[in-house]
Amino acid sequence: MIIGSRDAQKAQNVVAELKPKMRAGELVGMTNQEAVKQGEFVVIAVPYEGQAQMIEDLKGQLAGKIVIDTVVPLQKGKPFVPPAGSALLEAQTILGDEAPVIGALHNISAVDLGDVDSHLGDVLVCGDNETAKQKVMEVIRRIGARTFDAGPAANAYVIEGLTGVIIHLNKKHKSKHGSIRITGIGD
Amino acid sequence: MIIGSRDAQKAQNVVAELKPKMRAGELVGMTNQEAVKQGEFVVIAVPYEGQAQMIEDLKGQLAGKIVIDTVVPLQKGKPFVPPAGSALLEAQTILGDEAPVIGALHNISAVDLGDVDSHLGDVLVCGDNETAKQKVMEVIRRIGARTFDAGPAANAYVIEGLTGVIIHLNKKHKSKHGSIRITGIGD
Repeated sequence: MIIGSRDAQKAQNVVAELKPKMRAGELVGMTNQEAVKQGEFVVIAVPYEGQAQMIEDLKGQLAGKIVIDTVVPLQKGKPFVPPAGSALLEAQTILGDEAPVIGALHNISAVDLGDVDSHLGDVLVCGDNETAKQKVMEVIRRIGARTFDAGPAANAYVIEGLTGVIIHLNKKHKSKHGSIRITGIGD
Repeated sequence: MIIGSRDAQKAQNVVAELKPKMRAGELVGMTNQEAVKQGEFVVIAVPYEGQAQMIEDLKGQLAGKIVIDTVVPLQKGKPFVPPAGSALLEAQTILGDEAPVIGALHNISAVDLGDVDSHLGDVLVCGDNETAKQKVMEVIRRIGARTFDAGPAANAYVIEGLTGVIIHLNKKHKSKHGSIRITGIGD
């Protein structure tokens, strides 16, 4: 796995922090520009404010990759619907046909995602490219989460916004583990 | 409990259908105009297209009531964000200070809600009037569901949209029971 950052040193610092927590696999740090050239999947995990510029900057290198968008539009910690309809639709508009953008992993707490022993919530996955969506669901199942095909890219505003609601619940109940589980389907 | 409809006969037909399923309590049917005069809570459960006109028509009689809005904006079965930001905000804009609108019960399947033996999913409740929100949560807990304060009225678009995602999941998995459960909080 590769950690990218605008600053290679920052990426390497994160690698140094994460490596002791890992049980298996490689982890290296480099600039975003170099990182996105590697592998099949590129995970976007930045604050909403930084997403558009970052994707503009990486547009050429993202061609042919599957982009996993975890970005949640927040204003002072509260969810909102950006003009494009969602962070995902904004990213897809910038990338055009260059790379499919699949929304996923928004609703899992960073704390739980960073703990190999934690029980993960369900992951709602959305996007318009069905092949890419299935591949992303397969990858996410490998980290131990149940995945659900939550429909087209147009549904992304719901899944992104749900994180804002979970942040609200976490604050109210002093938790860092809020997440959701789908019931009445496949159980 | 009172069932309201534009047509009193329709309301009475629904009452005749529901009564055999009830274990306790009274149920009567009447026109919306008469129904909203009774009791403390008024539940709006109509298709999104009919909501604005209905609330306009009932505006005078709704003064001082707590309005529970279960309405989900759907276009051809798919969720969308209406111009006002959500069905709830649209209803609240029409009612102004006349009555607080609290969003709730969107994500429970009608089948499960109609079955006294079913296990209900969690209910996310939102709205800007804290007193009214707490009262609504108390009422919903009495029907056997866990409730969560999901924040201000501005969050309603997420909770309404989630129903659209659950409808998608139900269709895909041939279920009528799709719902959500909050994890990592209070459990």
